[in-house]
Amino acid sequence: MNFSPLISQLIDSLKVLPGVGPKTAQRMALHLLERNPEGAKRLADSVELAIEKVGRCPRCRNLTEEELCGICRSSRRDASVLCVVESPSDVMAIEMSGGYSGRYFVLMGHLSPIDGIGPQDIGIDELEALLAEGEVKELILATNPTVEGEATAHYVAEKAKQYDVITSRIAHGVPLGGELEFVDGGTLTHAFSGRKVMNE
Amino acid sequence: MNFSPLISQLIDSLKVLPGVGPKTAQRMALHLLERNPEGAKRLADSVELAIEKVGRCPRCRNLTEEELCGICRSSRRDASVLCVVESPSDVMAIEMSGGYSGRYFVLMGHLSPIDGIGPQDIGIDELEALLAEGEVKELILATNPTVEGEATAHYVAEKAKQYDVITSRIAHGVPLGGELEFVDGGTLTHAFSGRKVMNE
Ligand SMILES: [Zn+2]
Ligand SMILES: [Zn+2]
Repeated sequence: MNFSPLISQLIDSLKVLPGVGPKTAQRMALHLLERNPEGAKRLADSVELAIEKVGRCPRCRNLTEEELCGICRSSRRDASVLCVVESPSDVMAIEMSGGYSGRYFVLMGHLSPIDGIGPQDIGIDELEALLAEGEVKELILATNPTVEGEATAHYVAEKAKQYDVITSRIAHGVPLGGELEFVDGGTLTHAFSGRKVMNE
Repeated sequence: MNFSPLISQLIDSLKVLPGVGPKTAQRMALHLLERNPEGAKRLADSVELAIEKVGRCPRCRNLTEEELCGICRSSRRDASVLCVVESPSDVMAIEMSGGYSGRYFVLMGHLSPIDGIGPQDIGIDELEALLAEGEVKELILATNPTVEGEATAHYVAEKAKQYDVITSRIAHGVPLGGELEFVDGGTLTHAFSGRKVMNE
């Protein structure tokens, strides 16, 4: 015997969430059905709406449902500094640290030849187009301090040599092998101020 | 700066899931948007459909979208034995153990005067109506071995005295203070075979 078809299907579909296995999915499904159908309805609506409306900012590739994302739109951000990160969570982590006022470029991943992820997949063409505009004077590479993140940073630094920008890599404080989004704000601020020039 | 409104709303709505705090909700939202929009769409559809269609079996109160749930409908189940549990997860845990072939009655909770949950809220009237039919000869109380679960078992045992049934409480193996749904099948089978008569 099993749960009824619709409950089984709900349990199954909850497994798309990261870190959710069969047991957790079952607990979540029953919780929604038994305890919080209104919350479940709101969840379904939010997921549907976000999937339909949220896309990428044409300038920085960050996730947004707006024409241009809030950061690219803001005149209070320093357009001469561009920080390259792997994901929207990294943008959020850096924003939370409060120590950065430039703009971002979100790769939405990192180079990973083994998974078939090349420069085009992480928006290197768009990044170069942005650099070619000439407004960016400093490029800060804040990809994760993992093997792939380092390789991606070096690839970008190499490309940046064709443009009139100072390229730096965030440094101190971010633990090696760690994920940027799990680092506290103070450490991130420190990493920004301790950045080293990569091309000279 | 924050995520855009729709992303913030998605993160917020994911917090209805049990065990999901702000950080996990953020990770889940970005995962759905970046990596698995198709899975997210299926999730939204499944939640919506389940919330709309799934209700309670009129006989045993278990969750089902069918007229009568699979277990109440099955002629292969022993209608003379009725097992009282707190939740659909408990039915599932007992079914997985494979040692039980009777039917169930799902309280959908336990007595909890402090939370205003009384006999009507856990379907005691429906349970008595079922016992009054006379088909049930043995009533097995498999509520959780917690303070509330024990109190609920004693309350049901007291009510059952008016009917011609042997009332037993599952015993050996279920760790005290533990939750039934997290107990392995072998332990549950053992608990069933070691049940003790409560009224004599
Ligand atoms: Zn943008
Ligand atoms: Zn039923």
